[in-house]
Amino acid sequence: MSEIKRYNNSLNLSHVVEAQQFDRETILNNLFPLVDRMKANVAKGARKKALRGYQVISWFEESSTRTAASFALAVDWLGGKIVYSTENAKTFSSRAKGESIEDTIRILSECYHADIVVGRFANNGDAVAAASVAVGKTFIVNAGDGDNQHPTQALLDMYTIHEKFERLDNLTIGLVGDLANGRTVKSLAYLCGKFEGIKLYLVSPEQCKLDQGVKDYLNKHHVFYEEADDLRPVAQELDVLYVTRPQLERDTKLTEADMEPGRFSVDQTVLAELPDEAIILHPLPRTWELPTFVDIDLRACYFEQAENGLYMRMALLKMISHSLPKR
Amino acid sequence: MSEIKRYNNSLNLSHVVEAQQFDRETILNNLFPLVDRMKANVAKGARKKALRGYQVISWFEESSTRTAASFALAVDWLGGKIVYSTENAKTFSSRAKGESIEDTIRILSECYHADIVVGRFANNGDAVAAASVAVGKTFIVNAGDGDNQHPTQALLDMYTIHEKFERLDNLTIGLVGDLANGRTVKSLAYLCGKFEGIKLYLVSPEQCKLDQGVKDYLNKHHVFYEEADDLRPVAQELDVLYVTRPQLERDTKLTEADMEPGRFSVDQTVLAELPDEAIILHPLPRTWELPTFVDIDLRACYFEQAENGLYMRMALLKMISHSLPKR
Amino acid sequence: MSEIKRYNNSLNLSHVVEAQQFDRETILNNLFPLVDRMKANVAKGARKKALRGYQVISWFEESSTRTAASFALAVDWLGGKIVYSTENAKTFSSRAKGESIEDTIRILSECYHADIVVGRFANNGDAVAAASVAVGKTFIVNAGDGDNQHPTQALLDMYTIHEKFERLDNLTIGLVGDLANGRTVKSLAYLCGKFEGIKLYLVSPEQCKLDQGVKDYLNKHHVFYEEADDLRPVAQELDVLYVTRPQLERDTKLTEADMEPGRFSVDQTVLAELPDEAIILHPLPRTWELPTFVDIDLRACYFEQAENGLYMRMALLKMISHSLPKR
Repeated sequence: MSEIKRYNNSLNLSHVVEAQQFDRETILNNLFPLVDRMKANVAKGARKKALRGYQVISWFEESSTRTAASFALAVDWLGGKIVYSTENAKTFSSRAKGESIEDTIRILSECYHADIVVGRFANNGDAVAAASVAVGKTFIVNAGDGDNQHPTQALLDMYTIHEKFERLDNLTIGLVGDLANGRTVKSLAYLCGKFEGIKLYLVSPEQCKLDQGVKDYLNKHHVFYEEADDLRPVAQELDVLYVTRPQLERDTKLTEADMEPGRFSVDQTVLAELPDEAIILHPLPRTWELPTFVDIDLRACYFEQAENGLYMRMALLKMISHSLPKR
Repeated sequence: MSEIKRYNNSLNLSHVVEAQQFDRETILNNLFPLVDRMKANVAKGARKKALRGYQVISWFEESSTRTAASFALAVDWLGGKIVYSTENAKTFSSRAKGESIEDTIRILSECYHADIVVGRFANNGDAVAAASVAVGKTFIVNAGDGDNQHPTQALLDMYTIHEKFERLDNLTIGLVGDLANGRTVKSLAYLCGKFEGIKLYLVSPEQCKLDQGVKDYLNKHHVFYEEADDLRPVAQELDVLYVTRPQLERDTKLTEADMEPGRFSVDQTVLAELPDEAIILHPLPRTWELPTFVDIDLRACYFEQAENGLYMRMALLKMISHSLPKR
Repeated sequence: MSEIKRYNNSLNLSHVVEAQQFDRETILNNLFPLVDRMKANVAKGARKKALRGYQVISWFEESSTRTAASFALAVDWLGGKIVYSTENAKTFSSRAKGESIEDTIRILSECYHADIVVGRFANNGDAVAAASVAVGKTFIVNAGDGDNQHPTQALLDMYTIHEKFERLDNLTIGLVGDLANGRTVKSLAYLCGKFEGIKLYLVSPEQCKLDQGVKDYLNKHHVFYEEADDLRPVAQELDVLYVTRPQLERDTKLTEADMEPGRFSVDQTVLAELPDEAIILHPLPRTWELPTFVDIDLRACYFEQAENGLYMRMALLKMISHSLPKR
């Protein structure tokens, strides 16, 4: 309770653009307790008014289901309104006519005074660019920018891990799949740098390895990592098995060998090797790398993980609401 | 009045997935009187609160105007909100990344707790699949699935026929056009099986004949039907002339002969043959098969039919609201 | 104050379909003072109820950002709701199945009783067609029809000019760029015909000249115009430099010579020639014809112009609300 009070009084979140912006204390002491509260509110059916009277814009340049829908539902639970939304701005907005993201955001912010813009951006770095030109009291939430970052996803991933293990230090996490093109994995890696004693197994095909820039960050922040080209031998060491989808829409190429069951995907061998107390996560949507027979495994937590997305986005929006002018 | 009371107390509609799920008594004694009431409410401008506080998702994988708009307006008349909508989920949601309908619906239902998902599904059978995984208190409304069914359309068609004839028994109905690919016609045929003494003329080109499965159903339920390859000779026997559009987007191929005016379309000959007390219906949109000169014919009822779509969807949503937890 | 009172009592705007429908007195005495009031309301954060309980449909057949978003926000500021919206109706509505605009609008109006339909139409003349079939109390707002007209844009342009010069008579305006395909420029030219002593420079490549029909209108209404093929020599005479984007999506072809900086675009030479008290406008989105280095020039008014779009659309919707039945 004292935590929550402290949070209410001290934390005014503004833009949410990259995972690194959140520090350990904010995550553990402010954000996660608030997510707990949001979860309890939804369970009770308690609608809140934090966003009442505010105008939220949902600006999606690329396809999405979970992210767009959970933000929309989160806004509604908080009493706000998505006043304008576009689900394919890359093709159907002025962006298609060659408008820069800076001009677009200046319009929504400086000219139209939107309070919050939840944006999925087609290009890497556009969330930062958007925040840099948003004026006055318009706040930007990065709902994914290119293959760069997806901070709200990484935060909900960490929340789910914390919910299960009651800690974020001293964990062994296997990141499996398309580590080159998955923005989720990058944001998650950045967050790992905030905690102690995390070991990462980076299990990916040769052509899908994690960016050197992210690995440099891991080194600098004392996150131990090891690259691997097969999930099966390392599965037994994992607390968290975090599987991702090959991003075929971003031209990820897989060989026949890459698609061998268990290598970069979950099969019965992996399930047999994985410790009983481990958990299996996936940002979804999934394809063949996470077969539906895994769903009944007690370690499967990816639907709870998706559910936490609603609560995490509610919590982030509520924190932003503290920075908005009174209505 | 006693009917309505009875309805309010006894009928809790949950999922709406296929026309067959409705029985004669529900249709005539519960649903239609409620549609009447909705129509009267709208005429009076009386907004209602049946859906107040509930979160409705409008999930359209394929293009639509009438269905999507009328559901949206129906939700608003009932005091509810479309909290999240997508108008082309096939291309712009995670469905485009290979997600199964089961995963999508689990997310919207189990994870995000949507109250109602109004879905137009690209694939046959996905409405049933969706309802099978929706948990708790999320209800699915089939707003068309592939070329399989469109139950809310068929119900509004029947309501319009009932409004004009004050009965649904002992009618001769001509179903004209693309009977192979039109989901509306199939749902309508299924509903015909609930009533007595209906005779259907199935008037279609050879390559667009009604599915054998539907014809088996008609046989089993004692609906007499006769296939024909020209509308003109049978027009004089019809109570209801139900014209449909060739579904060119579903690769319906028509020959030059098929497009001869009056054969599978309405022309002056058809109008001359059609009895004075008959009515002309069309689910719309229409193309050349129903020329605009028919609009001033007193037997033309297709715009009233479309209007009834608003009231029918209000009634169905109101019936579903009885099954939702109190808010 | 007396102006506003008079306006409130006398002006009931119905459809907004083309610039010519507005006369000088309505613009100066009724509309502009109301825009001022809307601007003041937004600055104070004063939400209004003019549209409360009304159902607005946002029907966009083509891509848009500014127009669609500003209408959506305007509706919200006035307490109304966009009950149904489509952002790419050309592809994803029944229009894609061959439905005529007349049928579409009859459905939204006659069948579904929408109060206001804000429409961006793919085809020239469809706004007029829409208004001609809208029955009862459904009003159409033309948010751009093909390359024909964009009256709300032209009105906000004129408002911005009036805000700066406190007059609309006796001004020299340079219209620069793609005058053949830009609907904004055409609507603006029509509005110029309502005022006295306006001189237009029509600065465009040979293949992008203003339509003869618009020029005939200008002649008839005593608007002096001169065509030019280079901006630089005429810049020094301008009060208003109105730059437009080559509408590449409408197959505008430009030669290498056309793209020479300063010829049909703004460069340092143009800025040097342009009088100090002149203003630079652009309907946005912009591409290379208006480089971002112009943004810090004190004469650059295009973001204020965009902002005025919100207030202008609020004012127009408020005027329409006076014609709607009481709710």
